[in-house]
Amino acid sequence: MVNFCVFGAGRIGRIHAGNIARNPRTKLVCVVDPVEEAAAGLAGELGAAWAPDAATAFARHPIDAVLIGSSTNTHLELITACAEAGKAILCEKPVDLEIGRVDRCLEAVRRNPVPFMVAFNRRHDPHVASLRQRLAAGEIGELAMLIMTSRDPAPPPVSYIKVSGGYWRDSTIHDFDLVRWLLGEEPVEVMAKGSNLVDPAIGEAGDVDTAMTMLSTASGKLAFINNSRRCAYGFDQRIEAFGSGGMLQMGNVHESTVLRSGPGGYAQEERLLAFFLERHADSYRRELDAFLDALERGGPMPSSGEDGRRALMLADAALESHRTGRAVRVG
Amino acid sequence: MVNFCVFGAGRIGRIHAGNIARNPRTKLVCVVDPVEEAAAGLAGELGAAWAPDAATAFARHPIDAVLIGSSTNTHLELITACAEAGKAILCEKPVDLEIGRVDRCLEAVRRNPVPFMVAFNRRHDPHVASLRQRLAAGEIGELAMLIMTSRDPAPPPVSYIKVSGGYWRDSTIHDFDLVRWLLGEEPVEVMAKGSNLVDPAIGEAGDVDTAMTMLSTASGKLAFINNSRRCAYGFDQRIEAFGSGGMLQMGNVHESTVLRSGPGGYAQEERLLAFFLERHADSYRRELDAFLDALERGGPMPSSGEDGRRALMLADAALESHRTGRAVRVG
Amino acid sequence: MVNFCVFGAGRIGRIHAGNIARNPRTKLVCVVDPVEEAAAGLAGELGAAWAPDAATAFARHPIDAVLIGSSTNTHLELITACAEAGKAILCEKPVDLEIGRVDRCLEAVRRNPVPFMVAFNRRHDPHVASLRQRLAAGEIGELAMLIMTSRDPAPPPVSYIKVSGGYWRDSTIHDFDLVRWLLGEEPVEVMAKGSNLVDPAIGEAGDVDTAMTMLSTASGKLAFINNSRRCAYGFDQRIEAFGSGGMLQMGNVHESTVLRSGPGGYAQEERLLAFFLERHADSYRRELDAFLDALERGGPMPSSGEDGRRALMLADAALESHRTGRAVRVG
Amino acid sequence: MVNFCVFGAGRIGRIHAGNIARNPRTKLVCVVDPVEEAAAGLAGELGAAWAPDAATAFARHPIDAVLIGSSTNTHLELITACAEAGKAILCEKPVDLEIGRVDRCLEAVRRNPVPFMVAFNRRHDPHVASLRQRLAAGEIGELAMLIMTSRDPAPPPVSYIKVSGGYWRDSTIHDFDLVRWLLGEEPVEVMAKGSNLVDPAIGEAGDVDTAMTMLSTASGKLAFINNSRRCAYGFDQRIEAFGSGGMLQMGNVHESTVLRSGPGGYAQEERLLAFFLERHADSYRRELDAFLDALERGGPMPSSGEDGRRALMLADAALESHRTGRAVRVG
Repeated sequence: MVNFCVFGAGRIGRIHAGNIARNPRTKLVCVVDPVEEAAAGLAGELGAAWAPDAATAFARHPIDAVLIGSSTNTHLELITACAEAGKAILCEKPVDLEIGRVDRCLEAVRRNPVPFMVAFNRRHDPHVASLRQRLAAGEIGELAMLIMTSRDPAPPPVSYIKVSGGYWRDSTIHDFDLVRWLLGEEPVEVMAKGSNLVDPAIGEAGDVDTAMTMLSTASGKLAFINNSRRCAYGFDQRIEAFGSGGMLQMGNVHESTVLRSGPGGYAQEERLLAFFLERHADSYRRELDAFLDALERGGPMPSSGEDGRRALMLADAALESHRTGRAVRVG
Repeated sequence: MVNFCVFGAGRIGRIHAGNIARNPRTKLVCVVDPVEEAAAGLAGELGAAWAPDAATAFARHPIDAVLIGSSTNTHLELITACAEAGKAILCEKPVDLEIGRVDRCLEAVRRNPVPFMVAFNRRHDPHVASLRQRLAAGEIGELAMLIMTSRDPAPPPVSYIKVSGGYWRDSTIHDFDLVRWLLGEEPVEVMAKGSNLVDPAIGEAGDVDTAMTMLSTASGKLAFINNSRRCAYGFDQRIEAFGSGGMLQMGNVHESTVLRSGPGGYAQEERLLAFFLERHADSYRRELDAFLDALERGGPMPSSGEDGRRALMLADAALESHRTGRAVRVG
Repeated sequence: MVNFCVFGAGRIGRIHAGNIARNPRTKLVCVVDPVEEAAAGLAGELGAAWAPDAATAFARHPIDAVLIGSSTNTHLELITACAEAGKAILCEKPVDLEIGRVDRCLEAVRRNPVPFMVAFNRRHDPHVASLRQRLAAGEIGELAMLIMTSRDPAPPPVSYIKVSGGYWRDSTIHDFDLVRWLLGEEPVEVMAKGSNLVDPAIGEAGDVDTAMTMLSTASGKLAFINNSRRCAYGFDQRIEAFGSGGMLQMGNVHESTVLRSGPGGYAQEERLLAFFLERHADSYRRELDAFLDALERGGPMPSSGEDGRRALMLADAALESHRTGRAVRVG
Repeated sequence: MVNFCVFGAGRIGRIHAGNIARNPRTKLVCVVDPVEEAAAGLAGELGAAWAPDAATAFARHPIDAVLIGSSTNTHLELITACAEAGKAILCEKPVDLEIGRVDRCLEAVRRNPVPFMVAFNRRHDPHVASLRQRLAAGEIGELAMLIMTSRDPAPPPVSYIKVSGGYWRDSTIHDFDLVRWLLGEEPVEVMAKGSNLVDPAIGEAGDVDTAMTMLSTASGKLAFINNSRRCAYGFDQRIEAFGSGGMLQMGNVHESTVLRSGPGGYAQEERLLAFFLERHADSYRRELDAFLDALERGGPMPSSGEDGRRALMLADAALESHRTGRAVRVG
């Protein structure tokens, strides 16, 4: 039984805290958040204690592992503290929005080598996992092109946009991780172009809300990502892998299989599983199990600090390409 | 918190016992099965006691409700005992294989009026439930025809076939219940025809393994069911509802959305959710909640003893039609 | 080059006349219809002559083959006359609505053995033809069940219904032919049930507009047909073949492949190819070529007078089963 | 009746000659090709004359319009000659592989203003045409992104590659035309990246066989094209249009609708309509009609010389971006 402390009682912290409380292999011991009301409420629901900060939590409770789900700007300090305290760390992405600070996080873990996993949950989505497994099994021969689509139902508040690090660092970063994971080879060049088509306020905040990104590897594999902060039909997450022997396509998930035919043709009117908390509920549960498996095995984590760093480098490169109109080399 | 006793530690009993143990509204108190090994093992896994029979269980433990998941020939005695003991009853289908014994079960509950629900789990499948809700909402106008497909991956052992009551009573009975539930009107006539195409041993046991059944209602609605004890591509459960304004179609569920295109075309090669324990796992959980909701509300059960009786009458009529080559009137 | 005379300048006659005029292997010589206006108009458009009756046509023009597309009650007389005149005959279904008169048609052809083909055009539809070819190739092992759906967009005028011979003889007859053709074995028993749900006037005319029919063969294969005179989403023609090794499904054809996703889900809103003249345009062309191929080869026709007779016997059996509530033996 | 002369008796010339011979509005008068055998053979089949060159053809026959389907390097000379002779011109794409020579073609037509249409046949494909019409009707609100896929079954011979002008000018040029046509706004910037993954000989010839291209417009609309010279599952031509209100997706066309379900899942194993001569047969016929309609109306052609020039400019820009790693401005 692994005793867990969760940092952050916001949206993502609640997901993880709930999963930890229900997983038979883990025990939720403590929820840490400086906002007592949120943390104590969540802790109470799940039969855990709360604490205002890491030091207090670690002093009061026997803790084996932490889940860092607090805001990004707290990650560096928390990673450092947890590594020094010898706790295994499962940290929400992004590690940080600045590559220099990411390096300091990784350095902290190098100094105090605790198990450290960056939570790229979409690797654990059963649909994505099946796609990768089948790619690896050679079902389409040699991979040549990846075409990824990630569109969110609606943009977050502009206040969030302003501190998000920009579209590529905030959102495409998930796709960058999957691109790396699926290509099986590092992208070495990035070209990107963004637009402001959804909400003028996003443009005024200096960000884009519609984006296309192309990546290529040393061996010539090509990848493409398209993103939109608005999607009229829900949360659209698809992947197409094209290879010498064929194509694998991962589609969206609807609430039920019921189709209707009527005077206007046939329609799948059942809601797309929407938004990531629902569409990716499975992936958060499986991610926790993958972390526990790696803890038990003692081997490398399913996604490392270096994975977090690489994804951020690709995001930085995309932003630079968008700004300069040049292909940006990476790595 | 409802204290539960589960009768039967076989395949279906295990499903229910697990769901009861994990449901926050229920407590699994006791597992009853004359075979100590099975019952004690299951009870132990789930933190419950075991007892060899109902009397012992009721004497030792405070029990509010029972789940009857033991073999069909035990139902009459158990229903009688549980009703006399004042327990709420959730009973697996079929209530019994003989209409006379079903009537005695219903009579037992009438004498001791406890909450009594016959477990037609497929009503609680989210896909089926969505179909019915949309039918009821008038999405296809007036219903005219139902086309149901239920095909099992592989036949059960012939030893089971021999005591199953025959294909219509054992398996089509689920479809009969759905036909009634979806038509919203009682079938009054049944025509059926069965064949022995899968395994000669089934024919030698006097049963069929491939069957077609047509039903009609007083207002002229028509329904059709086709069944097979063998299905090369898995567990095939589809429903098509055709009405004056269009059609609703419920399809099968695959393990993931990944499609492959290759020299032979495109293929959905991900396994169909197979067999009822997996395909209908959701429905068993939701069925339990529906039972609990009805207990709390105090109103009628989602499916009653009369529903169990009606489904059996349709099965009897189908068998008679198959044997006589005549349309058989019901009800 | 085969010189053709077409009988009938109505809807179906126009289709055939046009195909004959455009086929490089045939020449449309003459259109025969007692209504001069229709026949002369059609003949004029296509560069052919017209004649008021067969005798006149045969006297004036060198004619090798005839297409009989006039009303059903004229078939017996025309078949007799054309056979006596030694013309090859391609005759629209049904041969006749009464089995006795069908026998007289077949007898006429037996006396004067000319090539005689009954035009079951759907056998020549590329989708149906592919399904049958794949069945024959053993793609699903041994065939066990056929599920056929044939629904028309809207009912014909009641005046037509009154002389149509009833739903099974008028419309299901096409499905009966396909059932025979796909089963590869004669049905020996028919059960049927019809309702009047679309238009009360159809019921008042003594006919049904919604029907289900089950057939079985000596070896135990089962087939099912469902029909409706109304279909809100267009012309619905699907076939499902289920066998020991899997299933083949033939679907409907839309005008284009474009799908739309929007707040209400995704939809295929492109029109279904609607009604038989459009959906089966290919099949009429291919049927003509199949007739010409058989003429050249000198072998048996793709569908014979006996095929026409068998389909009518099944229709008669279905009507009798609907009226008596009994399974009717055929053959 | 428009009298036509066809230049070129190769693959594409044959398509056009056949369509012209069968179209009731046109007459194929003459086939021109310096290779007598090919031209005379084709002309003979279709009941036309042949001539070795334009001057001879024009001297011998009354000709209203020409179809230029000869090799690209002959276009400039032929366009000039035909314009001077006052013939209406339907010219296969690309007009030329060098923008300077394209300008000379356009100048020739400006000096002798004859009707001049560049044959971008895919605009006339019914599926593409439906997509554009529905875009224009506002079905998905404001267009934001286009995602186009064009993959050929197999690469042409390297001898062809060497004189093709490179992948973007030879093949993507069709997609560039569609991008312009569907966006309804000129792309102003192009980023592209190509790889040599299919056949090393293509790379040795200085060309790529796998390519991604991104385009953007002044208003911020984004478009993406991916191409491959090899596609294991056939001729893959899809378009996805994403807008503020939803998405339109155009898919591929299979030979029949028959699906098979078996132990490996379900599969659409019917061949994709393959390669452009078959998949786009309709579009070549409709293109001819669109040319004739514009001739009759006297208005602008459905696609002009300027359209041909613009598509080539985008191809040149893509090639430059691929070579320099920079976004290239156009127009």
